[in-house]
Parts: sequence; structure tokens; C-alpha cells
Amino acid sequence: MSTSATGASRRFPSVNALTAPLVERLAADAEALRLAVTNENGARMIDAGANVRGSIEAGRRIAEICLGGLGTVTIAPTGPIASWPYSVIVHSADPVIACLGSQYAGWSLADEDGGSDFFALGSGPGRAVAVVEHLYEELGYRDTATKTALVLEGAGGPPASVIAKVAEATGLSAGDLTFIYAPTQSLAGATQVVARVLEVALHKAHTVGFDLHKILDGIGSAPLSPQHPDFIKAMGRTNDAIIYGGRVQLFVEADDSEARQLAEQVPSTNSKDHGAPFAEIFSRVNGDFYKIDGALFSPAEVIVTSVTTGKSFRGGKLMPELVEASFA
Amino acid sequence: MSTSATGASRRFPSVNALTAPLVERLAADAEALRLAVTNENGARMIDAGANVRGSIEAGRRIAEICLGGLGTVTIAPTGPIASWPYSVIVHSADPVIACLGSQYAGWSLADEDGGSDFFALGSGPGRAVAVVEHLYEELGYRDTATKTALVLEGAGGPPASVIAKVAEATGLSAGDLTFIYAPTQSLAGATQVVARVLEVALHKAHTVGFDLHKILDGIGSAPLSPQHPDFIKAMGRTNDAIIYGGRVQLFVEADDSEARQLAEQVPSTNSKDHGAPFAEIFSRVNGDFYKIDGALFSPAEVIVTSVTTGKSFRGGKLMPELVEASFA
Amino acid sequence: MSTSATGASRRFPSVNALTAPLVERLAADAEALRLAVTNENGARMIDAGANVRGSIEAGRRIAEICLGGLGTVTIAPTGPIASWPYSVIVHSADPVIACLGSQYAGWSLADEDGGSDFFALGSGPGRAVAVVEHLYEELGYRDTATKTALVLEGAGGPPASVIAKVAEATGLSAGDLTFIYAPTQSLAGATQVVARVLEVALHKAHTVGFDLHKILDGIGSAPLSPQHPDFIKAMGRTNDAIIYGGRVQLFVEADDSEARQLAEQVPSTNSKDHGAPFAEIFSRVNGDFYKIDGALFSPAEVIVTSVTTGKSFRGGKLMPELVEASFA
Repeated sequence: MSTSATGASRRFPSVNALTAPLVERLAADAEALRLAVTNENGARMIDAGANVRGSIEAGRRIAEICLGGLGTVTIAPTGPIASWPYSVIVHSADPVIACLGSQYAGWSLADEDGGSDFFALGSGPGRAVAVVEHLYEELGYRDTATKTALVLEGAGGPPASVIAKVAEATGLSAGDLTFIYAPTQSLAGATQVVARVLEVALHKAHTVGFDLHKILDGIGSAPLSPQHPDFIKAMGRTNDAIIYGGRVQLFVEADDSEARQLAEQVPSTNSKDHGAPFAEIFSRVNGDFYKIDGALFSPAEVIVTSVTTGKSFRGGKLMPELVEASFA
Repeated sequence: MSTSATGASRRFPSVNALTAPLVERLAADAEALRLAVTNENGARMIDAGANVRGSIEAGRRIAEICLGGLGTVTIAPTGPIASWPYSVIVHSADPVIACLGSQYAGWSLADEDGGSDFFALGSGPGRAVAVVEHLYEELGYRDTATKTALVLEGAGGPPASVIAKVAEATGLSAGDLTFIYAPTQSLAGATQVVARVLEVALHKAHTVGFDLHKILDGIGSAPLSPQHPDFIKAMGRTNDAIIYGGRVQLFVEADDSEARQLAEQVPSTNSKDHGAPFAEIFSRVNGDFYKIDGALFSPAEVIVTSVTTGKSFRGGKLMPELVEASFA
Repeated sequence: MSTSATGASRRFPSVNALTAPLVERLAADAEALRLAVTNENGARMIDAGANVRGSIEAGRRIAEICLGGLGTVTIAPTGPIASWPYSVIVHSADPVIACLGSQYAGWSLADEDGGSDFFALGSGPGRAVAVVEHLYEELGYRDTATKTALVLEGAGGPPASVIAKVAEATGLSAGDLTFIYAPTQSLAGATQVVARVLEVALHKAHTVGFDLHKILDGIGSAPLSPQHPDFIKAMGRTNDAIIYGGRVQLFVEADDSEARQLAEQVPSTNSKDHGAPFAEIFSRVNGDFYKIDGALFSPAEVIVTSVTTGKSFRGGKLMPELVEASFA
């Protein structure tokens, strides 16, 4: 991350220091939130929706852990999709570190050594300790911790070989690691995925080459998608909630042409795949995720406010009828 | 409560352990919330609206105590009733224990021994320690506590004989009991009653014979009703807020026919009394509460999402014009 | 403040005791909120938007400090201005003490002794310790503290002579004082100003001679205005957010004629200057603030609910097109 007049001497917050108490409280409230806390291969596992029922509140809290303690996630009773009133709201005073430095599911945790077919994308504060992703060089951010946590969108915790890999990359022992997991089909899983509405905007901003250090603040909202037992449909709904029902406002230090371009480039409307339910797109490419146009993963509507010029720019638009069709 | 694949081995949370700090904080913040904390006949009394003014915030907190610490109550700036923008939102990750195991005003506290005409329905975590209601057998839930609290919708705390009755039923001494009371006419009273929008849906689900253990999560909202000094009118408004302005989404583990039936059966529209302001219905039956059709006590609109099948079903509908007429 | 049946024996809460932990947490979270904490001339300075970027969350927390710990400020995803969905919500269980006894920017801190052109209006809990304003006699409120904080809408902290003046007025030493400042142009500055939507209604009620002790509770909301680098335009937007986009509900102990009159008198529509963007009005009077009709500083729309009679009265109306023009 480059520096600016006001950002130059900035000391970054520690996403691990901020989330440590949140992780402990999640574990302590396991009964109330219907979670299971176990020890597997020396690491702590928090099941939030695989072999337990979990809850929307668990998903909300997991989302705040994903955000590195640098943002809030709330459930609101209104939103722009008339027949699905309840929404997930995400707000971060530091969306770059919160969303890209912590929440983004960017750490590929395949089981190369153990030979199982386990695969998950790690999200959350542990990424900032491991810094195995190229993204961290661009962010200029890394964190230290004596304990850390990773969040996985899936039905199980990692096998011993993957725990070992995480321990090695973070320089911690298995006993210092907490893995929190919930499948997309679960209450907690769906909630924490929809809570990525701001993160996908940040990631898209990064993809289109916007200078991340110019992003100061961000708020996003998307309808709380109803759960579905089928993985493809569950994933379809959480994505549709964001792609067709998500709205984000970014506050940037940038001139008008940069801010306008960002507002035009970020929304999902730019994608050639835009316009069909996500589950349909996914089956069109025979489940090959990487054939889906990456530009699709973004909120439907974006407002970019330049604090430098005072002008706001807008791009994209909500597609309530597509959300309705997806959730029905 | 019967068990299921994922619910079988579940340990229930303690609504008393969760609420104990909330009750202490309510008492500690008495000045800021305009409450009076006294000791009467050995028990602690918190007056939240009878001889003090109380506040909406006190009502919000009392509602969270009623929910056994298993839910959140918030005030939002929007809702479906255009001219009454402020709403009460209730969310619980465990609506059965929160609403039926704690919040439901199910403990009849008549003064049989003392001979006064005191009568109140006890609500809150103390019910789960006393377990004098048949409902607890069905829930399969009971709680232990060294201190407990009861919430009363009324203008005064209980006389010595009722305190003794509660002490005996809970196995505690008077000094371990806190009674929190506020009349329906007060700011706190109206707020905590409207915050029962989710609870009445749970109670209705129970009444129509839906298997409670299948209810996983729930969110409800209703307009914050304006106070009225007349008890009948105050009660009329809080009920109308729920019956004609309340909206609930339940997340259930049930097949489509069960979920559809629940969505059809829960809303207040099923009642033969539906369509008139509650205060009018009440006077029609000459104030004999038990002549009112029990099916009326339910939210106006219900969405039931089956996490088993991914389908959502809807029942009832908001009647904004009736809410407007009631609140005017 | 006069007394009433229920208010007579009331002990007031201490806005300093309530805010002390909020101020410490703001300082402790400086990195996450992008604030700078320094010591200047013996006093603690928290820069929330002058030489640092600050954040909306910092502004939200500063607003809660301004409210003396007697209210909550939240960011909601909806509001009545369609294209500016994010709103600031303020709720206080004690709006008179919170808004007038603490939040109101009523302490004129000109540098008479030091000779610099420093000028700021002090807001927050320190005012209630100094009680140099006539308003405190009417409120019948004063607070004691061993440490206190003042919030300034501006680009810098006070010079040594003003710190000395504050120390003398509060009977504290410079080391016990915290000055929190953010210019109107900044994220935190704009947020904390829009969060005055309830306070301006209280101040207007005071100006029109309404008996303040009759105001029990209050909720307000206004659109989160986009920042502008130009001070006049930034001030224009934050004022327009309130004057044309703000909505307040007050709960009062008053008869119908008093409540109706309050609802009629409070809204900004009563001002002869109503109807033009604030920045335009400001330039019309050549920047002489005191030539602007004071009646303009008020929410657009007001609901006054009399808890004495149960009736609600309405005044004013939202002017979304003026908000849109101002924010564009």
C-alpha cells in the first residue's frame, strides 16, 4: 500500500489483537449460539453449522471476526428487496485492512501433503500472520500474533496435514490455532457470506487497479439470503444477494475521474455474466468456478464519494426481480 | 422438546447466567434510565414506569432480559408503517428457549395467600427456575440459578405473599429475587410489550402443534407504538403494533408441507377477531380477555424459511391502515 | 429545570462518569479508527480528522461522547432519501441532559487571552463541569469530574491560553483534559454533526419556550451526508441533512395543546430561510452566521407524542429534493 500525506506515518491496527476476544467469546457462547467446540489434531475447531445447527447470530459474529475486529455486522429490518426485509449491514472504518487484509477468502488450503481431497479457502486474521498471499505485499500489511483464527466456508475442519501447514506458515503451534467453519447451506454460513458484500467491492476495486490506500471508509448492505440445503443453490443465493441485491458506499481520497471510474467499474453490471441467477451461471460452466467472469463478484450498486472533491458517483443498479427469483 | 440428529446432544444455555449481568447493569444505570430501585419485603424492586418516568431504552433492555440474554432488541429508524417510522427489532438465535422458555408471560402470580387483588403474569428467566408451568415439560428445559429476575407488565411489584410464593417455587430467598415492573402505559412498558412480536409467533406455533424443536432462528419487527395513559388503549396499541404491524421470519428444519402450514397458521389473519382495533375487540367482550380468540395474538405477516428444503412460505399481511387508526 | 410529580426527587446521571470509559476507548482504538493522540501544552488532543483521515466510526463514537453517554448513535442502511440510503440514528433516554446538558456546542472558546484567532464552540461533557453557560441554570444540572472531555468542530486543538481557561472553569488541571476535534469536512466531523439531529430539536424546543422537563425521550435520524473539502459546502450538507432530511420523534408529558404547538413550532419549515440549500443561505448573508434565522436549525419533520393524553402531533415535512441537490 502506498502512502499519502495523511497515511504515511500510520501504524496499522492488529487484526489478531482485535479479534482474539471475539474468538474467545464465540467459543464461550457455544451453547447459546448452538456451536460445537472441539479439539482435533491439537487445534481448536468451532463447528458453526456442519454437525450443529448454528445460528444467524453465530454467522454475524463470525463475519466480525473475519473483518479482523475492524468492522461491525448488523441485521436490519429493512432493505430494498420488498419481500425479503431483513438485511445484513457491514461497516468498516478501515475497509482495506478489514476486508482484504483479513476477510477475503484468499488462502488456498489444499491438502497437498496429506493426500485427502480437503480443500478450503482460509479467511480471517490468520491470513495476516501467514502472509503467504501476494496480496499482502500490495497491502504493505502483516500482523503478529501468539494465537490466531481462520474461518472456512465448508462442512469440516482441516486434516492434520493442513493444520501443520497453517502452523508452519504462521509460526505458531497447532494449539494456538482456531478453525471456525460453517457450510454455505447453514444459517451461520449464509450470513457470513452475505456479509462479504463490502469485501467483494474492495476486491473488485483492487482488480481494476484502483489505488487501495485511497479507500477510507465503506458501508455495505445486502438481503439476508434464505438457506438452501443444496450447495449450488445455497451458493447461488448468497452470491445473488450480493450481485443483484448488494449496495455499497465507498469514501475515497481521489479526484473525480478516478472516483467516477471506480463507480463505473466496481458493480456487477460490468460482467458479461450479469443478468442470470448465479446458480444458473455456475451450471452453465459445468461447475468450473474459474470460468465465471471474475467481474461478476461485486455488489449490484455502488456509490463512490470523493472526500477530495465532494462529488459522489454511482454505478450499477439493484435487480430486485433477480433476487426474488433466486430466493423463491 | 424432542431431539433431532443435530439437536440430540445439545446442552441448553442458562437464561439466568446470561441475564444476571444484564439485570445488574439495569439497576446500576437507574439514574440514566430514570428507574427506581428499592427493597420491598426483602426483594429488589425495579420500577421502570409506574412512579418514575422510565424510558424506551429501559424497555429495550428489559426486553433483552425477558429474552433470557438469548436475543437482541434494537430500535430502527424505518419500518413498513410510513407515518410511524421507528420500529422495534427482535432477533434470537434460540427463539424457543428465549421466547417460550423465558420471555412468555406465562407464570400467573395471583395473591391467593395474601388476599390482595394483586395479579400479574410473570415473564423472564425466573420462570425457568420455578418451572411451575406445564410448558416447561414440553420444552424439556429448566434452569438453575442463585439469583433470578421476573418482569411484570403492571404498575407495582408483588406483595410479600407473592414474593414468598416465588421464593418457594424457585428455591431461593427473597433477597435473591429482582422484580422489574412497568405498566403498559409507560415508555418502557410499551417497548417491552411490542418486543414480544417474535414471542407471540413462537407461542402461536406451539398452539397450532408445530414441533418446537424444529424452529432454529427467528427475527421479528413491529412499529414502536405511541404510549397512551389509558390502560385499555395502551394495551390496544401494543397489541395492534404486533397484530397488524408485526412481521416475523422463522427459520425451521421442516419439510415443505409443515413449513407451508406454519406460515398459513401463525399470522393473526387466521383469527375470527382479525380486522378491528384490539381495544375495540376488548370492549366488545366487556374486558373478558379469555373471550378473545387466542389466534389473534400473533404477528400480521410471517415468512417461514425451511432450511431443510430451501423454500420459504408466507402467510398473513400487514394492515398499515389499522395501525394508523390505532396509533392516531 | 422545574420538577414534576415523578421528576422531583430525581438524581441526575453524571455525563462525565458515563463518558470517561468511552473517551479512553476512543484513545485506545486510535490506530483502528485512524486518529492521532498527542499531548499538547499538557492536555490530551485527539485529532479525528484534521491531520489524520479519521473515520465514520470515529464520528459515531464522538457523537456518543457528545451525548454524555446518555444516548446511542448507529448507522442504518435505510432512510427516507432514496439515493442516500445510509442514515445516522440517535436515541436518548434523557434527551434534555444528553443533548442540551452535554452535546450542544454552547461553550464559546475564543482566545481572548492568547491573542490568536482560535475560536471554537465546545461540546460534550466538559460543559457540564464548567457550567459557564446560562443554559445550565435553566437545566438545573451540573456535573463533577476528575477528568473531562470537550469536542470541537474544527481543524485543531486549542492553544495554551484556551486550555488554561478550560482548566480554570472546570477546576481541573490541563492533564485532566481531553480535546477531541475534527473539521466538518472530515468523515468523523460530518458524522458527529449530522448526529445532532435530535439536539437541534431539543434546542428549538427550548427556544420556543417549551418546558424542557416535560421531554422524556427522543429518537432522531438524518441521512449521512457526503463529505466536502470546502468548509461552507461541508457545513451546508450537514445542515441540509438535518434541516431538510432530519426526522425526530419526541415523547413528552404535556397536554394536547402544548404538544401540538411544539410539533408546529419545532420543524425547520417555520423559518423564513427555509427552502434554500444552507450553503446558499450562508452566502446570502455573506457568511455572517448570526444573520441566519435561528428557527432554521431544526429537523425537517417532527412527531410529538404526548404520553399524558396518548395523542401524537406532527409538524414540518421532509424535502428530499433539497437533500438530493445539496448532496449531489
